[in-house]
Amino acid sequence: MIDITLPGTGGMQPLPGRWLTCCFIELAGRALLIDCGEGTQIALQQAGCKLSRIDAICITHYHADHVAGLPGLLLTLGNCAKTTPLHIAGPKGLRTVLQGLLVLCPHLPYEIYFSELPADKPSQLSLCGFEVTAAPLQHAVECLGYAVEYRRKPVFNPQKAEALGIPRAHWRTLHAGMSIRHEGREVTPEMVTDGARAPYKIAYCTDTRPTGGIVSLAKNADLFICEGMYGDDDEAENAVSKRHMLFSEAASLARQAGAKELWLTHFSPAMPLPAQFAENARRVFANSVVACDGQRKSL
Amino acid sequence: MIDITLPGTGGMQPLPGRWLTCCFIELAGRALLIDCGEGTQIALQQAGCKLSRIDAICITHYHADHVAGLPGLLLTLGNCAKTTPLHIAGPKGLRTVLQGLLVLCPHLPYEIYFSELPADKPSQLSLCGFEVTAAPLQHAVECLGYAVEYRRKPVFNPQKAEALGIPRAHWRTLHAGMSIRHEGREVTPEMVTDGARAPYKIAYCTDTRPTGGIVSLAKNADLFICEGMYGDDDEAENAVSKRHMLFSEAASLARQAGAKELWLTHFSPAMPLPAQFAENARRVFANSVVACDGQRKSL
Repeated sequence: MIDITLPGTGGMQPLPGRWLTCCFIELAGRALLIDCGEGTQIALQQAGCKLSRIDAICITHYHADHVAGLPGLLLTLGNCAKTTPLHIAGPKGLRTVLQGLLVLCPHLPYEIYFSELPADKPSQLSLCGFEVTAAPLQHAVECLGYAVEYRRKPVFNPQKAEALGIPRAHWRTLHAGMSIRHEGREVTPEMVTDGARAPYKIAYCTDTRPTGGIVSLAKNADLFICEGMYGDDDEAENAVSKRHMLFSEAASLARQAGAKELWLTHFSPAMPLPAQFAENARRVFANSVVACDGQRKSL
Repeated sequence: MIDITLPGTGGMQPLPGRWLTCCFIELAGRALLIDCGEGTQIALQQAGCKLSRIDAICITHYHADHVAGLPGLLLTLGNCAKTTPLHIAGPKGLRTVLQGLLVLCPHLPYEIYFSELPADKPSQLSLCGFEVTAAPLQHAVECLGYAVEYRRKPVFNPQKAEALGIPRAHWRTLHAGMSIRHEGREVTPEMVTDGARAPYKIAYCTDTRPTGGIVSLAKNADLFICEGMYGDDDEAENAVSKRHMLFSEAASLARQAGAKELWLTHFSPAMPLPAQFAENARRVFANSVVACDGQRKSL
């Protein structure tokens, strides 16, 4: 089971009652965090996410509302007795940003591995048991969206195995994707399973204007988490000039991508009640949710 | 009138429901902030402190819980349309820390002036209409305590002025501390005022072991804000090894300094209810307050 939590939903600056946008995705006791603005360590605790499970952090870009919470979180992970390496990925500039922020935490009790990702084309990583795709967004600075996929094993079909006379001792090996030799012939996993299942997929895109690349990244996502800086369609000019999106633009991307569900997040501090604009998204894409701090879902 | 607010009272890491320790001291629309840990900009808003009034920030030391909130606060000040310079003071290393943290905010719309203060002897600054003394504390890293004083003018005595036949047109000049010539003789401010008044004084000391220097710094303070990492006297060994203080040690300093009131702050995250140890301070110094987030006082 994959647990997805959105501990915060704010953009630009943290507010009393609204944490900055970030996402905690947990699978089998290991968690991937996307973005870490000021206060994220508190938001995670408030949302019931176990900090000690964080094995990797993906940063979308280096505006402070997405990364300024890193020194505090890294120190707190150290205080949680973390000793295993932490993986941090982000667009070009990660080394400089980490060098800057780590002046506050020069003696962490664990190693940091970091990956600077290209900001002009998609790239792939494997983190916390997930296959992660990073792809360029269109913001005022280089910025990446992420698709986080969990490739599920096909369902094992015991009838097929029994019909072929495969002893139970080999079933686990076959289900794990490896072939065996049985009574002189090769048995492949495909012969005893019911075919491939679609992966679980979560796509996460902040901060950006709408692009075709986002539609590809979020293609058939079970959950598409997308920025909606402005709810009101009258803010279209602001959205263009500040390189952000309207609720309706995010909803249009969700529809084009064939996503199952859309969570809107990264709300402007000038929008105290984002939910009042929900209809602007829902009339474009019915399964749109104006997320709240602590929003949670399991796949 | 001087307004003093303690928006947070936590030490080490911010917690849901307890912000990190910092202090906002406001005089005539200008404010001095001491320390700026992660979340301080939210804590200030929650406590009703106007961010836009911050003209100066004094940092005690460069542990993240005292300084990691700086990039977010500086950006938010920019978003509040601040254009006048911001003064930042702190112990040696300030330049390096600012260079590191400012990678997140390279384009602020105001100038930053900074003062690296010696960590081995007291030094003086003038900030926001206050006379500020910085003095070394005793922590794991170089660390400064601050005394913030407002030197009040002596009270003008109109009877004395009238007895000397001084026209009203000169009263303001004399009260402002300047001498005049009247009918051929010099009239000094002392001749028409009721003598010097003690300055208003706030002393602020975190993080540290008790020292004689703190007693001098807090001498006769109207308000002595002091760390009390541990309430329970059984934590004495911890306090020594981690270079922090017990409530009872802070109270002893307040008594020796002849302070009028003590606020205890910077509580260990392992101490969920600091007020339960209030008696450990009060039996040493009666006017001890175990501070809460948002604690406030006017002088």
